[in-house]
Amino acid sequence: MTVTAGARLSPEQVRTLEPAGLREAFRAGRWTEPTGGMAPGRLQANLVILPRDEALEFLIFCQRNPKPCPLVGVTEPGVLEAPDAPGSDLRTDLPRYRVFTDGVVRDEPTDITAWWRPDLVGMLLGCSVTFEDALVSAGVPVRHLEAGQTCPMYVTSRRCVPVGRFHGPLVVTMRSIPAALVPLAVEVTARLPEAHGAPVQVGDPAQLGIDLDRPDFGDPPIVRPGDVPVFWACGVTPQLVCERSRPSLMVTHYPGCMFITDRRADT
Amino acid sequence: MTVTAGARLSPEQVRTLEPAGLREAFRAGRWTEPTGGMAPGRLQANLVILPRDEALEFLIFCQRNPKPCPLVGVTEPGVLEAPDAPGSDLRTDLPRYRVFTDGVVRDEPTDITAWWRPDLVGMLLGCSVTFEDALVSAGVPVRHLEAGQTCPMYVTSRRCVPVGRFHGPLVVTMRSIPAALVPLAVEVTARLPEAHGAPVQVGDPAQLGIDLDRPDFGDPPIVRPGDVPVFWACGVTPQLVCERSRPSLMVTHYPGCMFITDRRADT
Repeated sequence: MTVTAGARLSPEQVRTLEPAGLREAFRAGRWTEPTGGMAPGRLQANLVILPRDEALEFLIFCQRNPKPCPLVGVTEPGVLEAPDAPGSDLRTDLPRYRVFTDGVVRDEPTDITAWWRPDLVGMLLGCSVTFEDALVSAGVPVRHLEAGQTCPMYVTSRRCVPVGRFHGPLVVTMRSIPAALVPLAVEVTARLPEAHGAPVQVGDPAQLGIDLDRPDFGDPPIVRPGDVPVFWACGVTPQLVCERSRPSLMVTHYPGCMFITDRRADT
Repeated sequence: MTVTAGARLSPEQVRTLEPAGLREAFRAGRWTEPTGGMAPGRLQANLVILPRDEALEFLIFCQRNPKPCPLVGVTEPGVLEAPDAPGSDLRTDLPRYRVFTDGVVRDEPTDITAWWRPDLVGMLLGCSVTFEDALVSAGVPVRHLEAGQTCPMYVTSRRCVPVGRFHGPLVVTMRSIPAALVPLAVEVTARLPEAHGAPVQVGDPAQLGIDLDRPDFGDPPIVRPGDVPVFWACGVTPQLVCERSRPSLMVTHYPGCMFITDRRADT
């Protein structure tokens, strides 16, 4: 279908769209909600935009902390079009953004044109939407998806490798997996280093300083008899780290409202 | 053995040293030759040092061109110690360097302390020494190693993805492999994305604009009956690209004189 200016789209309508059509719909303000389940099989990414000085340090931070911060694309300073998304515009092509100044949320707009500066660098980080698709395809049940909930997330006692002003704790997601399927879950996600890769820990929340029943974000965990808790590095890590470092200006995606690339998630 | 100041080391002596001891020997000026064959199983890396503005663009270039430029480590601006090499000093711990100003070689010193500035960023790029070890271990013959020669290298007609001032052709190495072992050679190197990964081409030099008998660098190819030419992205690519971009200051390793990390090459 073709997107025309005007009315809001229904969830059924957006599900028929390819990545370029989705970006166009977001640009036109016709969809301002989360992107989960859209364009199955295409790489969705977290967005972090920083001024070039902070961007250099943050790129080094990603290089040292590849599991929470799998860098899948970077724009050159001032460039609007994102890699793997021809014709895209980083200022308009997400459903909603968060704008921080000095580490504080100032705005949650659907368009950041008013905030744009020529020294800004856009960085796309892989996210777990991609590997959840892969788990489900491999026959590994994903409890929170089955229940229509958000994955539980925990701030751990483990620290990221600090780089310059960027430092903070590792945040993880937890999925409780039937014991017999844990090896398969590890194998499937290890093949996707651009979507956080293999788990950081299996089976012992205490080692991560976690109380399983009290996630810091997301819904409470759903654990069935015979399940083992499995922990993956989470894309909330760089968000927390960036907030704490208080850059003069930072723009991120609004939670759940990802940048959708044309790239196939399995390549 | 312990390194003491003073005399030059013999090849037999350096072969007994661990990475930290080797770096210490280079620092003391006791070895100023190539590092091939040293510290087997440890990651050796190409070095590129650039001022921070150029470094940001070059990091983005590496991200877009991961096969010729597999980034394995980056220092923060002004930091002397390299990742995966505790106690190291990037100014002294390679046997020999090349210093470029405005794209022209100005010096080939064994120590770059006189050139150091607090805005410099050191970037370590994986190199094929690592994957040649893996090929040999897997039983794939490497012709130029058997002959004690340098691998043939070719400037191809394929372009890297340009980023800002950084652009140029893809340079490849060629190893002629017995046809039956080509799949194994691909499999083994595909597992090592930090050392250029899987080949970029198998079997057709013409498609890369290459005359097999006329390498641009290294020794002429050794091709046995039944061999197929296999081409891998080469670490000379970023060197050429950097030279062409004429940064105000750039320091690299002297050809063959790599930075030796403590890290195991297979992790």
